[in-house]
Amino acid sequence: MNTKRMKELGEKRSVIRELFEYGTKRKAEIGAENVFDFSLGNPSVPAPKEFTEELCKILEKENPAFLHGYTSAPGDLSARTAIAADLNERFGTAFGPEHLYLTCGAAASLTISLSALVNEGEEVVIFAPFFPEYTVFIETAGGKPVAVPCEWPDFQINFEKLEAALSEKTAAVIINSPNNPSGAVFSEESIAKLGKVLLRAEEKFGRKIYLISDEPYRELIYDEEKYPFVTKYYKDAVICYSWSKSLSLPGERIGYILVSPENEEWKNLYSGICGAGRALGFVCAPALFQHIIPKCVKMTSDISVYKQNRDLLYNALTKMGFEAVYPKGAFYLFVKSPEPDANAFCEKAKKYELLIVPSDDFGIPGFARVSYCVSSEQIERSLPSFKKLAEEYSL
Amino acid sequence: MNTKRMKELGEKRSVIRELFEYGTKRKAEIGAENVFDFSLGNPSVPAPKEFTEELCKILEKENPAFLHGYTSAPGDLSARTAIAADLNERFGTAFGPEHLYLTCGAAASLTISLSALVNEGEEVVIFAPFFPEYTVFIETAGGKPVAVPCEWPDFQINFEKLEAALSEKTAAVIINSPNNPSGAVFSEESIAKLGKVLLRAEEKFGRKIYLISDEPYRELIYDEEKYPFVTKYYKDAVICYSWSKSLSLPGERIGYILVSPENEEWKNLYSGICGAGRALGFVCAPALFQHIIPKCVKMTSDISVYKQNRDLLYNALTKMGFEAVYPKGAFYLFVKSPEPDANAFCEKAKKYELLIVPSDDFGIPGFARVSYCVSSEQIERSLPSFKKLAEEYSL
Repeated sequence: MNTKRMKELGEKRSVIRELFEYGTKRKAEIGAENVFDFSLGNPSVPAPKEFTEELCKILEKENPAFLHGYTSAPGDLSARTAIAADLNERFGTAFGPEHLYLTCGAAASLTISLSALVNEGEEVVIFAPFFPEYTVFIETAGGKPVAVPCEWPDFQINFEKLEAALSEKTAAVIINSPNNPSGAVFSEESIAKLGKVLLRAEEKFGRKIYLISDEPYRELIYDEEKYPFVTKYYKDAVICYSWSKSLSLPGERIGYILVSPENEEWKNLYSGICGAGRALGFVCAPALFQHIIPKCVKMTSDISVYKQNRDLLYNALTKMGFEAVYPKGAFYLFVKSPEPDANAFCEKAKKYELLIVPSDDFGIPGFARVSYCVSSEQIERSLPSFKKLAEEYSL
Repeated sequence: MNTKRMKELGEKRSVIRELFEYGTKRKAEIGAENVFDFSLGNPSVPAPKEFTEELCKILEKENPAFLHGYTSAPGDLSARTAIAADLNERFGTAFGPEHLYLTCGAAASLTISLSALVNEGEEVVIFAPFFPEYTVFIETAGGKPVAVPCEWPDFQINFEKLEAALSEKTAAVIINSPNNPSGAVFSEESIAKLGKVLLRAEEKFGRKIYLISDEPYRELIYDEEKYPFVTKYYKDAVICYSWSKSLSLPGERIGYILVSPENEEWKNLYSGICGAGRALGFVCAPALFQHIIPKCVKMTSDISVYKQNRDLLYNALTKMGFEAVYPKGAFYLFVKSPEPDANAFCEKAKKYELLIVPSDDFGIPGFARVSYCVSSEQIERSLPSFKKLAEEYSL
């Protein structure tokens, strides 16, 4: 029953949302400065000034009927051309605008791709920890999520478990690197091996197994970590991107799907993506933000703030005795719960006004996600509270 | 097979799109000024200057992290409050922000509402002529479209045929007034009677039958026709709106769903809408355009241009001998084909460089849609061609 599922999805609040509501209430009670809210993944660094300037410039210059008018369903040609050129320059690839389909953000990129790829009853492999909405999106497409836990402590792929999860029913595998919630970045070695394993599985099961790379955090990598662009390691790849995090535009819903031209069936897949966008009610990506893309394809927000926060938080918490995944990207610190029940740990944290998210909804128990897309000053001020929490566990 | 459906939807070009492509080619061959393109429903009147000014103002004034950040999934509270207040003032209703859910445009409003309302195998009644994507959206929700033809020549509801189409399987009825493609506006009498018929059907079949009013053309009404706001005539109503036409923002994907609070189950329905938005991959409506709503809820583009075009085109064509529906709203003239096959008629029109859309995809044969959201000057210049077309049929 479709309507029952929708009602339940609408009623069931996520743990993150519950915590956010609690934080709002608590801030009203004791003052916002006394609550250390690390619950959300909403970028704290604003979009760059040059971005706003370019927006104002095209608003002044261009005819509004063009600027706000329909674009073609796959997106404005200039925008797609600019994105392809930028990717080719950075990653040595050979994409054209015909391989790109602009979307209303990463969630849309995923629901559209999954609807184009998955048939009723097929399976989609995801790596735990994972973004909780993956299971919702997979189920919308009629698929069944199959979770494969990552390795501890580096959160790379456990290939033994992956191979056991692949079957003749596997339509796709989703990766999310840099990862929400762990901050881990899959190494080039992991991606290369993943490509080989999937190719072998395709041969073994005689079917396409698509690799969907959900990479809204792609530009948020620290320590000059090289980003292994997945189409170079596996031909049946689909990239889902969004400017939500790199340009701090999460509310504007602008992103894309990229299909690899090395997949010999890419034209059929692209048609399926166009069809799925249409069927789900996506007419085109927001036009104004499409038209600004050629001007800002090389811009990012000031990511150095997140790196500074990462260092500050990771060093302080591990010094206090907490165990945590070393985050090479994104803006989350994944802290091991000092007791088996992460929910109990996060409840204790609340006593010290620390709002952190238990990991169960991300598909693994025993961790807490600390979002450090906040001011460095909030992190500094929160450290005595984390210290008290550590002491409670005698770390 | 889901993927097969998506591929076919992506490959099958609409007649309108085919015509548009033909027009682009033809314009390159003989010059844009010599092709009279009446194929698309893309507003020709730009968004008002005050709208652009307000956009620039908030871009200069507000913090980009707020302006482009996530809003709550149902939409920013100020925007929803402003919309409710405006509707209450204009239509004497009593809506609050809690009855509104902002969306990425009218297509999203429809796919979300249908997914929240329709169960697998249930039926959704639509009135022919209808916007062709209705059948796609209904099928995405697992439903089956049931078309009921309107009356000739006023294109009001044929209640006998409607009653024959309603059954215990009917989950919803969609109306679209002012109508694309006919330009007809359902009279207050039609809407009042529709409310009574649906209430009787609910009692007879012991189930909810929702009335979905898709009204992106609501503000485009001429001749001071009074707009019967459907929630006043039927309690189980859902309004799908978009600023695409009224503010000439079709590319920006900004609209809303409104549930009537007089439906005793509105809270469940609203939860279902929140769940469906989430399941389909709509995170929030584009944030910048949400934040501008309180400033522009009373603005429209210069609609007088469309009225002028309506009068010019309707008078000239009927004087030449064509029969047409008198368009009381929207920006389409629905012309009766002088021969039974509208496709043949539209092909003949091409000989005179007139690009008009045959009605078959709109669910009825024998008509052509002429979009008059073009410059008045294009209409003037096209009249000799229409005259020659009339002469070919000895009208």
